[in-house]
Amino acid sequence: MFPKNAWYVACTPDEIDGKPLGRKVCNEAMVIYRGPEGQVAALEDFCPHRGAPLSLGRCVNGKLVCGYHGLEMGCDGKTVAMPGQRVRGFPAIRTYPAVERHGFIWVWPGDAAKADPAQIHHLHWAENPEWAYGGGLYHIHCDYRLMIDNLMDLTHETYVHANSIGQKEIDEAAPTTKSEGDEVVTSRFMQGIIAPPFWQMALRGNGLPDDQPVDRWQICRFSPPSHVMIEVGVALAGHGGYEAPADKKASSIVVDFITPETETSIWYFWGMARHFKPEDAALTASIREGQGKIFSEDLEMLERQQKNLLAHPERNLLKLNIDAGGVQSRRVLERLLAAEQAAE
Amino acid sequence: MFPKNAWYVACTPDEIDGKPLGRKVCNEAMVIYRGPEGQVAALEDFCPHRGAPLSLGRCVNGKLVCGYHGLEMGCDGKTVAMPGQRVRGFPAIRTYPAVERHGFIWVWPGDAAKADPAQIHHLHWAENPEWAYGGGLYHIHCDYRLMIDNLMDLTHETYVHANSIGQKEIDEAAPTTKSEGDEVVTSRFMQGIIAPPFWQMALRGNGLPDDQPVDRWQICRFSPPSHVMIEVGVALAGHGGYEAPADKKASSIVVDFITPETETSIWYFWGMARHFKPEDAALTASIREGQGKIFSEDLEMLERQQKNLLAHPERNLLKLNIDAGGVQSRRVLERLLAAEQAAE
Amino acid sequence: MFPKNAWYVACTPDEIDGKPLGRKVCNEAMVIYRGPEGQVAALEDFCPHRGAPLSLGRCVNGKLVCGYHGLEMGCDGKTVAMPGQRVRGFPAIRTYPAVERHGFIWVWPGDAAKADPAQIHHLHWAENPEWAYGGGLYHIHCDYRLMIDNLMDLTHETYVHANSIGQKEIDEAAPTTKSEGDEVVTSRFMQGIIAPPFWQMALRGNGLPDDQPVDRWQICRFSPPSHVMIEVGVALAGHGGYEAPADKKASSIVVDFITPETETSIWYFWGMARHFKPEDAALTASIREGQGKIFSEDLEMLERQQKNLLAHPERNLLKLNIDAGGVQSRRVLERLLAAEQAAE
Repeated sequence: MFPKNAWYVACTPDEIDGKPLGRKVCNEAMVIYRGPEGQVAALEDFCPHRGAPLSLGRCVNGKLVCGYHGLEMGCDGKTVAMPGQRVRGFPAIRTYPAVERHGFIWVWPGDAAKADPAQIHHLHWAENPEWAYGGGLYHIHCDYRLMIDNLMDLTHETYVHANSIGQKEIDEAAPTTKSEGDEVVTSRFMQGIIAPPFWQMALRGNGLPDDQPVDRWQICRFSPPSHVMIEVGVALAGHGGYEAPADKKASSIVVDFITPETETSIWYFWGMARHFKPEDAALTASIREGQGKIFSEDLEMLERQQKNLLAHPERNLLKLNIDAGGVQSRRVLERLLAAEQAAE
Repeated sequence: MFPKNAWYVACTPDEIDGKPLGRKVCNEAMVIYRGPEGQVAALEDFCPHRGAPLSLGRCVNGKLVCGYHGLEMGCDGKTVAMPGQRVRGFPAIRTYPAVERHGFIWVWPGDAAKADPAQIHHLHWAENPEWAYGGGLYHIHCDYRLMIDNLMDLTHETYVHANSIGQKEIDEAAPTTKSEGDEVVTSRFMQGIIAPPFWQMALRGNGLPDDQPVDRWQICRFSPPSHVMIEVGVALAGHGGYEAPADKKASSIVVDFITPETETSIWYFWGMARHFKPEDAALTASIREGQGKIFSEDLEMLERQQKNLLAHPERNLLKLNIDAGGVQSRRVLERLLAAEQAAE
Repeated sequence: MFPKNAWYVACTPDEIDGKPLGRKVCNEAMVIYRGPEGQVAALEDFCPHRGAPLSLGRCVNGKLVCGYHGLEMGCDGKTVAMPGQRVRGFPAIRTYPAVERHGFIWVWPGDAAKADPAQIHHLHWAENPEWAYGGGLYHIHCDYRLMIDNLMDLTHETYVHANSIGQKEIDEAAPTTKSEGDEVVTSRFMQGIIAPPFWQMALRGNGLPDDQPVDRWQICRFSPPSHVMIEVGVALAGHGGYEAPADKKASSIVVDFITPETETSIWYFWGMARHFKPEDAALTASIREGQGKIFSEDLEMLERQQKNLLAHPERNLLKLNIDAGGVQSRRVLERLLAAEQAAE
């Protein structure tokens, strides 16, 4: 149902600050922590001694010490030591490829031999000082593909987020969708509209008037396994819209990493990368708070939709033009899953 | 297990005041709301677009607007409109016969072709200004038949409701039970007793002394699928009991609509229709509060009884004379269920 | 999975003080209460009338009165009376042998014909005024054998209870384990160490210095079905350790009765019997509070270990020297279970 030979965001660096983290990714229960040189490591969350979760233990000088009886586990899944024991014969536990990059910890829950860090999704803004980033994490009980659908069809903003980023003009501007290899792009452009509240705040944040007609854009880019980057912004009308100069617009990238926990639950890493006033920490906090509130509005809808679909597995859902982004993304996933199964 | 070709109370009017309500009745997940002329409608709670529950949406001019992407649903289960879409080919969703009557919203979860509003249980007091009504709703995890049993055997009052309506004399007065067609009636009469606290309050509410011997009656009337109306009251002794003139008694009808949600859960609509001082709103509120407290005392017992029965499905329960009301009610239900299955 | 022909601690006397208690022991749902002469009784928690749990009822002069319709149950599982009913033909419910002894209520969930109160675990300290006892009860979602393992391998103290009774020297002192019939004993002795915080408090409680080198011992005694008594203590170094005179040591027995509720949950009765200052109630309370806190630290570990094992039923756990106590205890249990099955 989800590709396992893929890089997923497992957590953020602050989640493993000085202590191990237990997290299930694609049905694999992992313990994630920093090893001796500070590098990240991901192992099965299962102590070979008595099955205790290693994530309840501690990190001591880069060794993971089981919180039950003190077994010391190495980053390679081999027991380093245990008080009073010879550990050479202890069975190793599974390791998962893990890499820290672009401000996230990435793991590969599938066949380790196929893991190539070069394939980790590139975030051009992540180490660029002209950009600022703020984000958060939600746990949601839904199939990860329902969240991809959600993000690839932003007409829901008018209904789910009516008081922040929704506006009637979204419905009226038909989106266009195209696939390029494994990437799917759905774009929508609106011209000469009044910015909704969230974008009025962003305009003010960038020192621009918030009551003038603007051009607005939404360019949703899906890339497998489940990343959706959305270029969003507004520019004062008559300055070129998406192409307008930086001092005439407020633009950002909505960052969404959707990590399947199980078939019906996800870790949803959301955030916004901003290309204006990157040094303004108060603005980052304000945007983060607003976005966190907006994205929390999707939770109940997605969880209830999931329950409805589980109760009616036989129903065929509609695939309208607005759904093309989700539909084409699912096709990419099916292709990858078929290839993964063929290789096995 | 429960007849589906029957009228059940689904909700009260205040529950759909200005917004749709999601409610499961006999395993059918419905959205209930008011259409363009204010008439009630009940549909599958499933948007044909992407399966979102329509009950998370809004009512706009009698149209049900899906809260996810704005599909507008009509009372006939056909999509009226959707922003930017031609909706003619959209699949219809199921509709359920729904009628507002006697202060309740009634739905028919079974074969719509067989639904006849004339069969809705008649409540003679409901539109009679000489009567007042107050009630509430509880959700209980038990088979709806356990609640029928409960209400058709009021000897439980002595034990479950010892401090309000229970009294030893109930145990001592053997009930009589008879069936008339699909109706089952269990009656109990007590003479020359002291009224228990709830009825002392009712006597005072009707301007009568609360410390005189009274005659008390309980006449429980089951009618399918799961309505139990209980005539209850006390009259000052020596004035004819049940037949006493209005100024010598305090009498009411306990109103119970037991709507199966699933095989092991119910929506329990309880209330009291009162034939004295109907204009006294404070008395209505006081009785409602007292009754709500009393009926909440049944919850734990019924839920724990249900768990015990699920753990011991092989056990045969006793069928004593006091159980005759429940036993005969179940027979009516079995007959209806057999007829329903034969017709299929 | 657990022997049923065995005496288990079901509850403490205060839990049935004036009212019946519902408790499941080895998958048997029981109601436990005091009969006419104050003797304890344990019955199926199932009223023969309509299946209500008798534990929701009341005790009236040693009779158990069902809280639903007033059936009066006797200690022999036979209905004594019911208002307005002849009860002679009522089916009896199952009774379980039950005995009050040593400050606990013991029940036998298996074949009553085999129950011999002489086999109840003897607690020599329980009625000895030179000893004081304090304890508590935890409900934990784990296989009872995981708690036996926990208590028969105290190396976990260093990690789970690092701030109270744990210390590095535990790891360094290899335990020895031996079986004697059905009893398994794991012993560990440490010499010339500094007492950890809990034992410093105990030393002070016994009027001894808390900063001198001490000898420490832990002697864990498993006896079936699931009792673990642990002799623990510290003596000022050079006075004979375990054999030191009473005024040179602080010693106790950690008392653990592990009663299976289901295959994956337990009632854990923990406590400490103390052989010094028995009259000091404040010390009893202080030790009880400290021990309660310490034992609560095991809960999350055991519940999470249980989940891990359920997710990986195929895994073979390691059986190190420190695990010998648990391993040998399980062998005793397997022997008893095999004998129980052979007898059936």
